[in-house]
Amino acid sequence: MEVKMKSLSLLTDLYEYSMANGFEQNLVNDQAVFDVFFRKVPDDGSFVIVAGLQQVVEQLVQLHFNDSDISYFKGLNLFDSKFLNMLQNFEFECRINAVPEGTPIFPREPLLTIEGPLIQAQMVETLVLNILNHQSLIATKSRRINFAAQGRPVMEFGARRAQGPDSAIFGARAAVIGGCSSTSNVYAAKQFNIPAAGTMAHSWIEAFDSELESFQQWARIYPENTALLVDTYNVLESGVPNAIKVFKELKGEGHAPIGIRIDSGDIGYLTKAARKMLDDAGFYDAKITVSNALDERVITSLLQEGAPIDNFGVGEKLITSASSPVLSGVYKLAAIERNGKVIPKLKVSGSREKVTLPGIKKIYRLYKIGSAQSFADLIALNYEEIGGEPLSVIDSDPLSVGKMHVLRGYRAEELLKEINLTHFRSNDVFKIKDYCQTEIGKLPDETKRLTNPNRYTVYMTEKLANLQQRLLKKSAN
Amino acid sequence: MEVKMKSLSLLTDLYEYSMANGFEQNLVNDQAVFDVFFRKVPDDGSFVIVAGLQQVVEQLVQLHFNDSDISYFKGLNLFDSKFLNMLQNFEFECRINAVPEGTPIFPREPLLTIEGPLIQAQMVETLVLNILNHQSLIATKSRRINFAAQGRPVMEFGARRAQGPDSAIFGARAAVIGGCSSTSNVYAAKQFNIPAAGTMAHSWIEAFDSELESFQQWARIYPENTALLVDTYNVLESGVPNAIKVFKELKGEGHAPIGIRIDSGDIGYLTKAARKMLDDAGFYDAKITVSNALDERVITSLLQEGAPIDNFGVGEKLITSASSPVLSGVYKLAAIERNGKVIPKLKVSGSREKVTLPGIKKIYRLYKIGSAQSFADLIALNYEEIGGEPLSVIDSDPLSVGKMHVLRGYRAEELLKEINLTHFRSNDVFKIKDYCQTEIGKLPDETKRLTNPNRYTVYMTEKLANLQQRLLKKSAN
Repeated sequence: MEVKMKSLSLLTDLYEYSMANGFEQNLVNDQAVFDVFFRKVPDDGSFVIVAGLQQVVEQLVQLHFNDSDISYFKGLNLFDSKFLNMLQNFEFECRINAVPEGTPIFPREPLLTIEGPLIQAQMVETLVLNILNHQSLIATKSRRINFAAQGRPVMEFGARRAQGPDSAIFGARAAVIGGCSSTSNVYAAKQFNIPAAGTMAHSWIEAFDSELESFQQWARIYPENTALLVDTYNVLESGVPNAIKVFKELKGEGHAPIGIRIDSGDIGYLTKAARKMLDDAGFYDAKITVSNALDERVITSLLQEGAPIDNFGVGEKLITSASSPVLSGVYKLAAIERNGKVIPKLKVSGSREKVTLPGIKKIYRLYKIGSAQSFADLIALNYEEIGGEPLSVIDSDPLSVGKMHVLRGYRAEELLKEINLTHFRSNDVFKIKDYCQTEIGKLPDETKRLTNPNRYTVYMTEKLANLQQRLLKKSAN
Repeated sequence: MEVKMKSLSLLTDLYEYSMANGFEQNLVNDQAVFDVFFRKVPDDGSFVIVAGLQQVVEQLVQLHFNDSDISYFKGLNLFDSKFLNMLQNFEFECRINAVPEGTPIFPREPLLTIEGPLIQAQMVETLVLNILNHQSLIATKSRRINFAAQGRPVMEFGARRAQGPDSAIFGARAAVIGGCSSTSNVYAAKQFNIPAAGTMAHSWIEAFDSELESFQQWARIYPENTALLVDTYNVLESGVPNAIKVFKELKGEGHAPIGIRIDSGDIGYLTKAARKMLDDAGFYDAKITVSNALDERVITSLLQEGAPIDNFGVGEKLITSASSPVLSGVYKLAAIERNGKVIPKLKVSGSREKVTLPGIKKIYRLYKIGSAQSFADLIALNYEEIGGEPLSVIDSDPLSVGKMHVLRGYRAEELLKEINLTHFRSNDVFKIKDYCQTEIGKLPDETKRLTNPNRYTVYMTEKLANLQQRLLKKSAN
């Protein structure tokens, strides 16, 4: 099953078209290379989990402008007829290189590059960033939350608090890539083949005359899916005792109880007390699920105090990455090809951090020979040979001291892969999740922790560093 | 022009269907009333600007389940055939009451109510909340940012950092409702008839051999839309001097300069210096636009120090409401109608704040006779007569002392209006914006300020307070 997104050809900032129209008149034969990268990791983490490539590709291959779009553009009185004609017969011709979805990526590394006619490569900036920034943000948050849950299943529950429908749908997809096991969102579950999860809301219980009756009716209908919400009236005095009554009835009929869910109150205290009541009644296998404004901090704290929780349902704080709700990925010009010559480009800035890395680049993950654990990444120019030979590199962090290192005895794994746009097939989201976990497994432990992770080194080659310096000096003249 | 959203019938939490299937077997003839309300205002503000009703209605009237959906549901092995049959022939029968989009609303006030078959009213919870929570969040943030801008135009620039495509598209709509004057997002501009705004990115300048050449080419193509981005190399030593050269050339040809945009560096310092340079060159009318991670706090601070800014472009902090990225609107059962009898319903909770207001309710904005400025709101039961007579009321804030007040000499304006679903017509987004500003104008000034606003009183009638107390006591038995 393959449900496509609606066409988002117009999801772009106006200036992309204003510039494209201008390029059409000035630099119509220029080819360009743009890099997508970010400078800061949400929640002061060490890396971002890249997600959204499938939707980017789906959109790019179907980019087109219908009559209504063209007449809208005409009405803006900004564009000349040659440009509008080009739009009417638009075919996307750029080439894309990207890291596979689920790859952990570090600041300044191009995670996607677009190479092709300057006009076209400029036009798709906003759309590409929107999709990648969103899904990578949520995959990254999900990784954090699942890391905190220490292997306990985390269900994505955020649809009602997501920032619009797509935020819920593609956010659920990204949450699975980052580690979640299921979603309550039926649309996303169907579209991306994710297990749909959920039990009941308080309204189920309130609709009946008593809590016990509501539990009994539920158990009758869903004898194999009896996760009872126990906090409508009073968890320990009413909810859990009533749940235990129903579990006993179910047991008499040969069904195994699924468990209870607690959605309010002091989760640490209530889960311990509820666990004891369930165990005392012999229901050792009844699972305890908790929800209610959870995130990686709350989960870490609950598990630290020994709260006996089997499953987490995580909503608004995951689906909006609430504590850090923006991934500021950017799309920067790396090079222009004009009359067969590559001209590397640099964005200068008053702020050292914002100076870009010029030229067409590739990125590598570096391992010591014989080790399965990476020790650094490397950004190189596309014509450089990277392999076992001694290699001069410099930390790419603009705040580093800029000392030269020589790498020896290393193995380099290239991360950017060319995407076959015409034959692109979407990957199963759980395969992406598995890949993500494998790749995270190769990183040093100290870069994975949630609080003050160690900064993972991203080197650049001496050649790239020299190119940046040369262009910086030139721009100062 | 009317572009519909994609059908989001499946955008729901699984448990809505599990419950609906259960209600189908138990309480198939029950009618229900659900309230949408929130408890906390983002950014510790005093009120929320409601937005999204148009999209809610568009979705509800087209709710349906196609063969692919039905076969997906069958595969879940949760639902019986009678329920699936009902879904296959689904027709939405509920009635909706809602406050008009753009209305400022306070905590605990039902801003939308759904009344109809319990099964149906339960099924749409997630979808209704997703849309209202998102657009109301962004409209509320936009109100804050536009309030800080003190009448200067604010352009919505956030598409690339929004949480997915819909977040950009419907966020732009909500941003205009809350006060923005334009958007860079072409999709939203076309769909909602919003002026499209924007100039150029750094890549335009970098693509040419020099900044001056890039400015000159731009001015040649867009002589009436020459807002030049001056921070690619150096704002004061290169960008502004080059812009002035181009403005002089334009002036010679009879065109008026539009202005400059600054997107990095110290905005306060740079705008003052740039203003002086423009004025010294005689370009008093050249406008200065600024962007770069602005929000209401940064804007307040810049204007306080006298930065000569004409326009603001606000991106990620608006489109994600970054400092407060969740509006936690809820959807709570207020009453069940069973065998012709209305049974008011209450959600109890260990936390006083989370106890709901039972029964079918209506809300009013209260004015002293002869005054155009409201002094409080009122939540009443639907069968109460609210008018000029002395009326006993209590502050509905669960943290208030609960003292009775008697209201005299007041005028009450009812806020919830019945929505005609079959003949619902979308309102022009700028009309909604105007309505919003009019309604905000009726509120006391001290409730509008951005920091520590005065809490606006929301009363409930004595009858409603007594009903809540009675049900609370009953549930304790």
